Amino acid sequence: MTNQEHLFSINIPDTKKSRIVIIGGGFGGVQLLKNLNSDYFQIVLLDRYNYHTFQPLLYQVATAGLEPDSIAGPLRKVINRKPDTHFRMLKVNRINPNTKTVKTSAGVLNYDYLVISTGAQINYFGNRNIAEHAFPLKQITHALDLRSHIFQQFEKAEIMTSEKEKKKLMTFVIVGAGPTGVEVCGSLAELKNKVLPKDYSGLDFSKMEIHLIEGLDRILPSMSEKSGKKAKKYLEKMGVHIVLNCMTDDYDGEVVKLDNGTTIHAGTLIWAAGVKGNLIDGFGKKSILKGKLVVDEINRVFKDQEQKQVYENLFAIGDVAHMLHPDYPKGLPGLAQAAIQQGRQLGKNLNRLHQAQTMKPFHYKNKGVLATIGRNKAVADFPGDLNFSGALGWFIWMVVHLLFLIGFRNKAVVFANWSWNYFTYDRGIRLILRPSTKENDAVSREMIEAMKETQE
Amino acid sequence: MTNQEHLFSINIPDTKKSRIVIIGGGFGGVQLLKNLNSDYFQIVLLDRYNYHTFQPLLYQVATAGLEPDSIAGPLRKVINRKPDTHFRMLKVNRINPNTKTVKTSAGVLNYDYLVISTGAQINYFGNRNIAEHAFPLKQITHALDLRSHIFQQFEKAEIMTSEKEKKKLMTFVIVGAGPTGVEVCGSLAELKNKVLPKDYSGLDFSKMEIHLIEGLDRILPSMSEKSGKKAKKYLEKMGVHIVLNCMTDDYDGEVVKLDNGTTIHAGTLIWAAGVKGNLIDGFGKKSILKGKLVVDEINRVFKDQEQKQVYENLFAIGDVAHMLHPDYPKGLPGLAQAAIQQGRQLGKNLNRLHQAQTMKPFHYKNKGVLATIGRNKAVADFPGDLNFSGALGWFIWMVVHLLFLIGFRNKAVVFANWSWNYFTYDRGIRLILRPSTKENDAVSREMIEAMKETQE
Repeated sequence: MTNQEHLFSINIPDTKKSRIVIIGGGFGGVQLLKNLNSDYFQIVLLDRYNYHTFQPLLYQVATAGLEPDSIAGPLRKVINRKPDTHFRMLKVNRINPNTKTVKTSAGVLNYDYLVISTGAQINYFGNRNIAEHAFPLKQITHALDLRSHIFQQFEKAEIMTSEKEKKKLMTFVIVGAGPTGVEVCGSLAELKNKVLPKDYSGLDFSKMEIHLIEGLDRILPSMSEKSGKKAKKYLEKMGVHIVLNCMTDDYDGEVVKLDNGTTIHAGTLIWAAGVKGNLIDGFGKKSILKGKLVVDEINRVFKDQEQKQVYENLFAIGDVAHMLHPDYPKGLPGLAQAAIQQGRQLGKNLNRLHQAQTMKPFHYKNKGVLATIGRNKAVADFPGDLNFSGALGWFIWMVVHLLFLIGFRNKAVVFANWSWNYFTYDRGIRLILRPSTKENDAVSREMIEAMKETQE
Repeated sequence: MTNQEHLFSINIPDTKKSRIVIIGGGFGGVQLLKNLNSDYFQIVLLDRYNYHTFQPLLYQVATAGLEPDSIAGPLRKVINRKPDTHFRMLKVNRINPNTKTVKTSAGVLNYDYLVISTGAQINYFGNRNIAEHAFPLKQITHALDLRSHIFQQFEKAEIMTSEKEKKKLMTFVIVGAGPTGVEVCGSLAELKNKVLPKDYSGLDFSKMEIHLIEGLDRILPSMSEKSGKKAKKYLEKMGVHIVLNCMTDDYDGEVVKLDNGTTIHAGTLIWAAGVKGNLIDGFGKKSILKGKLVVDEINRVFKDQEQKQVYENLFAIGDVAHMLHPDYPKGLPGLAQAAIQQGRQLGKNLNRLHQAQTMKPFHYKNKGVLATIGRNKAVADFPGDLNFSGALGWFIWMVVHLLFLIGFRNKAVVFANWSWNYFTYDRGIRLILRPSTKENDAVSREMIEAMKETQE
């Protein structure tokens, strides 16, 4: 790959302005970019993908409710509205804060300011078997793989002779009862109860099982106790088996081993049990806390967290950052809102910096937390102990998500799809388009390879 | 794979009715199924995919105009409306007309009547290099691969140092000027003229080249001369280089060799130059003509075409069939309409057969032929030398395609997308979701492997 460096160059026009390089076009990166004044700065956005993803709705793609284009938008469309703003689709391999350079798959780029907004990746906590056999749900490609896999399970079950194997194909285990786990469970339960029996008349859907495994003593631990209980009631009514206080020890593609001694024969395990910061090489222990880049209240990365020294021109926002903030001793919540607010704040701060004004510390404004379990079944927590559930919660959930989806077109298509799904209990997108393997997903492949190397 | 046979069984309930097995859920197969009376027959549909594809719009998926769910529908949705009708997703390996059985990847199934509606596959005319490096456009997966590939070319071009390489990445060669080739050309030209320059400000789009190579002396040979000329004018005005009377000899992924001695350096070759029947093993030369199953006017496959002997219970319809018909000495046109009409007719004929009535011979009703080149640019031929072009042609094209797309939901989504594209000159679906290789596509892989074996 070394002589590739002669073929490619990151190739950004020279500028007299300061150059801000943003790594990662997620919620934080895009919001930052929108708030930066391009009269002050040249802006360069780098990402491995050419689109940004509305991750809270990935589960809808995975369960045939929406197509990818509804929850993802081309990053170049965001870029092309701003002058002297550039996008390059490539992988960043290393950051060197001393030389103020990033090393990418297409060569080296120097920066005046660097913002790392690479988000989070799945955390398998070192369990290689699970990494190899479980389905993650963090990227569009994961969601498409999972969708194809789910429907392939039922197609296979129709032609399977052994009752035991048939049951295995129809058994789904979801690990982790955060919003992703709960929403996938609810959506699978709706497929089981309303959509699939019409399609697969040869299968007995009373035998389809959905298990939700959670290590803590409740579901939706990031939400109010009231909402957690309500969501649990909804899921159980829909037929989901919930196991609390239980860790998942192993999965070989066929048998899930739980730490309470029981096993579940399941053709599918969806891993929604944890994420970790998507770190890039170039930082030592002094900059890292709980697997994330530790930052101050202005999102500056600590050069040395003990000595309270920061890099003046190097920032991290969103899920890759752990902010030391007196109001949030456990760190900010891993929500889109937190990334969006940090991106917006940092954009304004950098504009202030350029004008020699003082940068302002970050304050998180809790705008509420939502999770949907199914049609007319959602839970919503708002500041001031305001909780909603049922049809009203669901309505709030839908409006909020429609408002957040970027771009008028997506909103119209999403609304058309959801209306259709609501009134017909149909899911149009039951197409099996991809081979059901992890081979398509370069990131998963890399991760598994790295684990193999570590274990050897 | 042999002990798989014990694990799987095709598993259709026993019946006292006659069993009709349909292989292939394309236009013909679906239409046949809809017209069969399930009081008379048990119906079994077999397909490798779990969806049917509106193939005339594949080029829109390939060029980021539509998402797959807009032009594909789950086959089980068609099935689940009819009693005693069954779908199995699997591959048919062999037909044995003597024992009245089909051998599939999940075991053997016997039939009383068999209908082969497996359609067509890409014909590379034995050119292994082209098969390996060109992009086909016959399946949804092809269209998604091509879409990712097209946008990857521009992302790469942005970071490419060599001007020569950059130009190669921005050069597209389309071989074959039938409707698919012409429509892809037009859609690429619109991307070049209206969409991409906004996205890739670092690239000089006057250097983007689109070449259309055709072996015959005109484009759209299946349409009227007037429409062919009009389409040629449109394409040339949009900047497409058209080369007529020219065969494509070779392509190694970088250089296209034409038989007029010239070469074109191109990162993409789209092969729309020919198709052949998607035959299944089990038939000898006596049943095959021009690479298709030869059938009589009732779509019965000939056991021996010279002796005019037919199989009484074995039919072929659509693109896999070559009908001996006095009105169509060259065979029926390879259009959706021909397959649809044959499927409908055969369905009614089989119902008649059950009632001991006489089956009626097939007559093709030409409902017109359409091709679209771009916004407000389409050509339409109707019976009685009625030709339309321009905005009116385009409007007719749009209405006809909307009416044909199966299912209300798809129509609404397609119309929303097209309206958006029309008014904004935007293409929302510019997401690079798949690695740009043919490795995802099992059919292409099989075909290339088979060619390697033949050549060795």
